[in-house]
Parts: sequence; structure tokens; C-alpha cells
Amino acid sequence: MSKGLPKMEDDYSSWYNELVKKADLAENSAVRGCMIVKPYGFSIWEKMQSAIDKMFKETGHTNAYFPLFIPKSFLSKEADHVEGFAKECAVVTHYRLKNDENGQGVVVDPEARLEEELIVRPTSETVIWSTYKNWIQSYRDLPLLINQWANVVRWEMRTRLFLRTTEFLWQEGHTAHATEQEAIEEASKMLEVYTDFAENFMAVPVIKGVKTESERFAGAVDTYCIEALMQDGKALQAGTSHFLGQNFAKAFDVKFSNKDGALDYVWGTSWGVTTRLMGALIMVHSDNNGLVLPPKLAPDQVVIVPIFKNDDQLKALSEKAGQIMEKLRDRGITVKLDDRTTHKPGWKFAEYELKGVPLRIALGPRDLENNTVELARRDTLTKEVVPMDGIDEHIQNLLEDIQNNLFEKARTYRDQHITRVETYQDFKDTLEEKGGFILAHWDGTAETEQKIKEETKATIRCIPLDGEMESGKCIISGKPSKQRVYFAKAY
Amino acid sequence: MSKGLPKMEDDYSSWYNELVKKADLAENSAVRGCMIVKPYGFSIWEKMQSAIDKMFKETGHTNAYFPLFIPKSFLSKEADHVEGFAKECAVVTHYRLKNDENGQGVVVDPEARLEEELIVRPTSETVIWSTYKNWIQSYRDLPLLINQWANVVRWEMRTRLFLRTTEFLWQEGHTAHATEQEAIEEASKMLEVYTDFAENFMAVPVIKGVKTESERFAGAVDTYCIEALMQDGKALQAGTSHFLGQNFAKAFDVKFSNKDGALDYVWGTSWGVTTRLMGALIMVHSDNNGLVLPPKLAPDQVVIVPIFKNDDQLKALSEKAGQIMEKLRDRGITVKLDDRTTHKPGWKFAEYELKGVPLRIALGPRDLENNTVELARRDTLTKEVVPMDGIDEHIQNLLEDIQNNLFEKARTYRDQHITRVETYQDFKDTLEEKGGFILAHWDGTAETEQKIKEETKATIRCIPLDGEMESGKCIISGKPSKQRVYFAKAY
Repeated sequence: MSKGLPKMEDDYSSWYNELVKKADLAENSAVRGCMIVKPYGFSIWEKMQSAIDKMFKETGHTNAYFPLFIPKSFLSKEADHVEGFAKECAVVTHYRLKNDENGQGVVVDPEARLEEELIVRPTSETVIWSTYKNWIQSYRDLPLLINQWANVVRWEMRTRLFLRTTEFLWQEGHTAHATEQEAIEEASKMLEVYTDFAENFMAVPVIKGVKTESERFAGAVDTYCIEALMQDGKALQAGTSHFLGQNFAKAFDVKFSNKDGALDYVWGTSWGVTTRLMGALIMVHSDNNGLVLPPKLAPDQVVIVPIFKNDDQLKALSEKAGQIMEKLRDRGITVKLDDRTTHKPGWKFAEYELKGVPLRIALGPRDLENNTVELARRDTLTKEVVPMDGIDEHIQNLLEDIQNNLFEKARTYRDQHITRVETYQDFKDTLEEKGGFILAHWDGTAETEQKIKEETKATIRCIPLDGEMESGKCIISGKPSKQRVYFAKAY
Repeated sequence: MSKGLPKMEDDYSSWYNELVKKADLAENSAVRGCMIVKPYGFSIWEKMQSAIDKMFKETGHTNAYFPLFIPKSFLSKEADHVEGFAKECAVVTHYRLKNDENGQGVVVDPEARLEEELIVRPTSETVIWSTYKNWIQSYRDLPLLINQWANVVRWEMRTRLFLRTTEFLWQEGHTAHATEQEAIEEASKMLEVYTDFAENFMAVPVIKGVKTESERFAGAVDTYCIEALMQDGKALQAGTSHFLGQNFAKAFDVKFSNKDGALDYVWGTSWGVTTRLMGALIMVHSDNNGLVLPPKLAPDQVVIVPIFKNDDQLKALSEKAGQIMEKLRDRGITVKLDDRTTHKPGWKFAEYELKGVPLRIALGPRDLENNTVELARRDTLTKEVVPMDGIDEHIQNLLEDIQNNLFEKARTYRDQHITRVETYQDFKDTLEEKGGFILAHWDGTAETEQKIKEETKATIRCIPLDGEMESGKCIISGKPSKQRVYFAKAY
């Protein structure tokens, strides 16, 4: 019934790639590195967007839209920013094609060369801060709390569906504040929003932390992040929130007059999550039968499959299914009936397992006689026959149970894969044999971080925000350390 | 009270430009021709999106996402399509910048030239039909009913906020069908959806028709459209729906096996509306005091302005306002309280008039005594004092009344500006003196159409779909005609 997926224990990477394609989530396009998000995959992304957008609005943010193109010169205004992004920018140099003189299609028209090249936004700090300069004069204009949903482009040499694509979809928040303290609070608040979303909607437990200098966003003073653990023991950065200090305000000369009338540079933050979250969702919950979706993000939470031998049976079963659907919809549960006669029930069961529908109802003639239904949970792959009476309440409870179970299961796995090590040998052995997060002491230098990365491919995922203080010695240099940090191999 | 807007009767164009900026709808960006949709403007666009998206889903469509970039060669596959779009394409030629050797910022890295240039999508037929080739094998895969919300780029030499911008936001539906009939029905159905949205949400009456060959979408067999009339007598194309025949199926070799097992090319449609609709919304309803929004698209439907002299009064008024807000919100009405002490009531009144809030409640100490409120309608600029009791129901009715009134007012204006003419002299005089739509006989030739366009700047907006048949003679050539067509100067 596994629809021909590779087994995850045999080849996790192939399993992932095939699952993404077979479950109709996404596929590669004719443009290298750019993906097509297919309707089913997009409907999950829409559920994510809708939940996140609501959280943003509840915390006082509004959406806006800024240009796709950024003048090349803007990039250079913030020194770290240009260093971080110049090497992966798609560059627009011309604004017209013309007919090829050989009659072979179209060619770039050399006369339509732009005076200044435009880059396709890899992120929008520069174009947004150049705008904020005109929007902010006084403390009364602050805070400015804006988000945009957009596509961005970063030219990647090695791409994977959802995880690393040349074009991806994301939201990017860009806020401006009168004080340093307020900007730091905003960056923290948005990290909490991301944590809330990851844990309570995606059922993905995350570790909150701050990045080391070498992993920091190009142009930020501090980058906060949430880190999740995939089933293959690799970490995935699921969201970042940057405290930008006054860096972009200085680069774009954004000053405001404070309450005392004095001029000062504005303090900034930016924060984003991307279609990468789809990859995390898949790699935290799914199995060899396919996708497993938490009910809160499942486009269809329940599917009803009638089991019938003739039209009369189908008619009676459809009627019963209609009653169930009405009750479920009254409770805000999304449900669909698959009464196609072109496919057998077994095929449908496998299909909805592949697509990750949390709960399947099988309804046969015997169920009509006994006034029962058969429920199959996607997360545990268990079945039960339950009475029709109170079916809606039972299903509502089950969906909550599935949501919680997925989170607890993921948390247990994650917690079992956090290992404290004291020596570099232990570090390497753990990484090799078990994977997961490794909590170890680090001397705080980029040199040590780099050495470990080169020798083991593990990076410091974050310095935990709620990690306890503990004196120790760096596993490499033996120098004193006050706090353990999280290492892992990562996507 | 007019916040310094130019008068529309003095200079309609300046009035429009200033209104868009002053009402915080949009502004120009540092990138020529690309606009910034500001938070307030974007919140109106979000309401539009949400209503339209719901209609699409109710008619069986799902959303997906296709790449921003299109290989240059794709464009050439459909002959008319490349002819229509090649001259206005932003072209990506490189994928990297590098540090300038003079230390002057960054320059294009000549070593990072793309093997094949990419264009930034001006519309997505080519990239989508190249994908449909893999998605469609059999009649069982049809119909394929997909929409995407996206940004597109068409290099425009003369731009205006919302009306004509280099980058704009839109939705583009792309459907594939087994039969010609079904595809034509789909194109018609989506024109009805657009009509429904324009008339019942935007309160903008539209004329449904089909474009002449010269105004047709590049690659379509037929382009259906809805045309609206602005207050300055110019028409605006508010939405188009294209019957593509088998043109793109042939260009991208998309065949399916029908029920008899025979192979045939798929039939297609595409249809879209853009942020241009914001321009139409503004130019149909607004006045010299600013924006006028139909309640169904107003982010804030009601605003409450307390009128107070001291803190005690403000406190009592805020409490009363709280009660009103709760009642209104229970009815699904969006309402906000502006209790800022930094601005005077008169300033606030002007501000909400500028922003087009449909209904304003002024609440002063005397209202507390008398148990009344003062209501001001944005559409009619009239005020009334009404009892607090039943205020919520009264306001709900008023909002419906405003919605209907805006539509009726616009329809009356539009109908008064449809003129039937019999001679070319009448045609020119009407265009000069009155503007609006002109219903005239046309001989069906591109030559006549072109001559009229050159001499008067008026174009054939559409051949009406529900227009009566009537024998007549072309106003230019005198040749026989069976039906009048709509002419107008247009945005």
C-alpha cells in the first residue's frame, strides 16, 4: 500500500524527494532550481499562511507590498549585506527582447540595456529601508510594523524541493522602532510567534536560540532562530528573527526626532519564514506510507470512503456520508467524500495515506446495519469501529488527539536526540552513530566553530535562549565556557 | 477639510495621483515604474483578494504556484504570444554580482552569464502549459482548474500608480479542458465571476463583451472582458477572460486521450484581474474629499471619533464606544475607535473622509445625555443624529444602503454616458464634449478601427455580449453592420 515510495530507513533523501512528488506537493520546473508548488502542496501552504498572517495581525502588524526589483547600488549601502547576497543574485540587465535576425526566436535587444542593473530581491531590507526614510520623521511615526508575503530569489547551485530553491515564497517582516530595547523586544516577540506556530500548528517542537556571528543574517546585530530536528537526525532552521540595530537606518539615513526633539537613527528588525517550512513538516511527521499532516494544517481533515458493490449500496452509503459530513462541517471540520467509481477502496486508502489525511472513515453495508463506522488514524495507522451516534464529537476529539500525539511523538524523538558530550571524540562518535543535536561547550571563537564544521560538517545551530548557565571547557580548545551550545548537521 | 487634494474637475489626473498618495494607498518606488502598495492600500487589496479567491474556490478552482522566471525560448513557442510580450520583458542575464575592482560597490560578474536568458513572467501561459504537458495524459485528468496569485512584470514606458506599473500583482487562472465547448463555458463563467465581483463588491457596473482581434490577448482565440467607466468619461478594462482554443496546447504539445482512446490537443482558457482594480475603485466612487469605499471592501467600515474636552469625558465616551463596537462586531462589522489625544476631531473627520471610511460616528457629551450618536455617511456626506437603541441594526442597514447607493450612482452615471451615434462627426463631437461610451456601428475591419483610434484616440472597448442585433452602417465606411460596438477613450 505504500504507492512505491522508497523506504526512509534505506535512503532518507530519495524517500523525501519521492514523497514530495508522489503526494502532489511540488515538482521541479523547466527553470533550474525553481519549483512548482502543486495544488495540494499549495493548499497546505495556504493553511500555514493563513494561520501565520492571523498571528501577525493580532500582534499589530499590517501587510504591504514592495518592489520585486532592487537597484544594484542599494545592495552596496550596507557592507555586510552586500557581502552576504551579491554572490547569489539574479540580475536584470535588459528590458526587451527582439526578433533574431536569423528568424530563430528572440534574442536580448542590446539597445534595451538598463542604465543601472536591477537585482531580483533576495530579501527586501534595502528597498524597504530606502522607503522608510520617507515614512519616518518623528517618534509619532514609530513603531512601524509591516510584513509582506512575497517571492524571493537566491541563486543556489544545489537545490532541493522546498528545502533550498532558487525562488521561494516567504513572508518578511520589517519593523522600525524608537529605541533599542523596543526593537529587541519585537525581534523576541516574533520568535515567540514562530515558536507558537511551529509547535501548535505544525506540531514541530523547536529550540529557540541565537546564532553565532558567522551564522548571522548579513546586516544583523543578532539573529534569533528556531531549530527543529528531522527524522534523519539533521537539524533544520525553521524561522529567523533579526535585531538589525541601527545598521540599515544608517545605511539608508533613516532618522527620527524623538520626544525631546533630538535626531537619532531608527532601530530595526526583520523576520521571516519560508516554504522551507513545508520541508520541515514533511520530515518531522511522515512515514513510509507517505505524508502525515497535523489536523490543523490538513486541507482535508477527514475523508470518507464508501465501500460498495452496486449502485444501491453506494446510494445508501452516500446518504449516510452526507449526514456525517453535515455534522462535521457544523463543527468546522473539513471533510470530503470520495465516491468515485473509477478507483477501488484499497487504492483510495493508499492515496489518502500518501496525502496524509489525518482521519479516514470507511463506510460499508455492514456499518449501515450496525449503525457504525470504521475510523483509521493516519498517525498511528490504527483502526477502530465506533458507533454513529456522537461520531462528530468523537472525531473532533480524535483530531485534537492526533494533533497532540504528533507533537509529543516529535518531541520525544527530539529529546532523545539531544546528547550532552564532554569531549571532541564523543562529539564525533555521537554525530556519526546517532546524529541529532549535540550540546557541548564551545570557547566562543569563530576558529573553533570553523574547525568543527570542516572536520564534521556539524554547525552551531544556536546558543540556546533558555539554556542554563554551566561552567565547562570547550571540547576543542579546552578554554573556559559558560554555556553549552547546540551543534548539529543541518539542512 | 479636503486635505489639500486638487479638485477633480480642475485636473482629474492630478486629483487621482494625489489621492492615491495622500490616502496612503500607494507610492512610486526608487525603481522606475514599480510601485509600493502601502499598508492601507494593501488592506483594501487583501479584501479584494479574499472575496475573489473565495469565488474561485466555490467554482472548483485551486491555487498553485509556478516559477517567476521563464526560459526565453518558451516565449517563442506561441507565435502571437511572443509578438505580444517580447518587447516589454525584463531579462535576467546573470546570476551573480562581484566586487568592483575600483572598490566602487558591486558589478555584474561576466563569468556568471546564464546559458539561456530568463525573462521575468509577464504572464504565465508558457511556463504553465509546459507543465501541463506532464500533468495531462487522459480525459480523466481534465478539467484542470488552477489559479495563481502572483507578481508579473511588463516593462512600461509610461506608468501610473495602480493603472499601469512595471510590476503589478494579479491572479491568473489557467484551465485545461477536453472539449472546445467546455473551455468556452469556463471562459464565460469566469467573466461572470468577475462581473459579480465588480458589481457586488466594488459597486462598479460593467459592460461584458468580447475584444476585437486587434485588442485580443496575444495567443487567444477570443478575449472576453468587462469594461467600466471612470468619472472622467474614460473607460477601464477591469478584467479579461481568454478562450485560448488549442493554441498553447499545440505550442507545448499537450495532448490527451479521450474516452474513445484517440489523442487530441487540450482546450485552454486563462483569465486575470490585477491591482488595476484599485484604480477603478478609486475613479468610480471617490470625490474631492478623498477616497469613497464600498462597505464590502472597506478595511474599517465604521470609525468612532469621541469629542471630548477632558479625560473624564473621554473615559465616559470610550466606555460608550466600547459598547457600540461590541454590538457592531457581533454583526461582523469592522469598526475602530480613534481616541487619540494628539489630533483634533476636525482633523480626524477629514482623515477618515480622505481614507474613505463608509460611516463615521461622532460621540460627544451631549450624546451621552440624550442617548444618541451622530452618524456621517461618506458617500452622501450627510449626517443624522440617531438613538443609541438599535444602533447596530441601523448601521448594518446603512452599510447595505451605502453599498447599493454607490452602485446605483455609478450605474446612473455610466448609463448617462452611453451615447448612440450615427455619424463620425457625432462620434467625434460626443467624444470631445461628453466622453463616456459611444455605441456605434463598425464595419468589422481592423483598418476602420485603426483609423478611428489614430484620429480620436478612442478604441473599441468591446463587442457587447448581450447587445441587441441591429442593422446599420459603419460610421466610417458606410458598410453594413449587424451590431453596435462600444467605443471609448480608455486607461
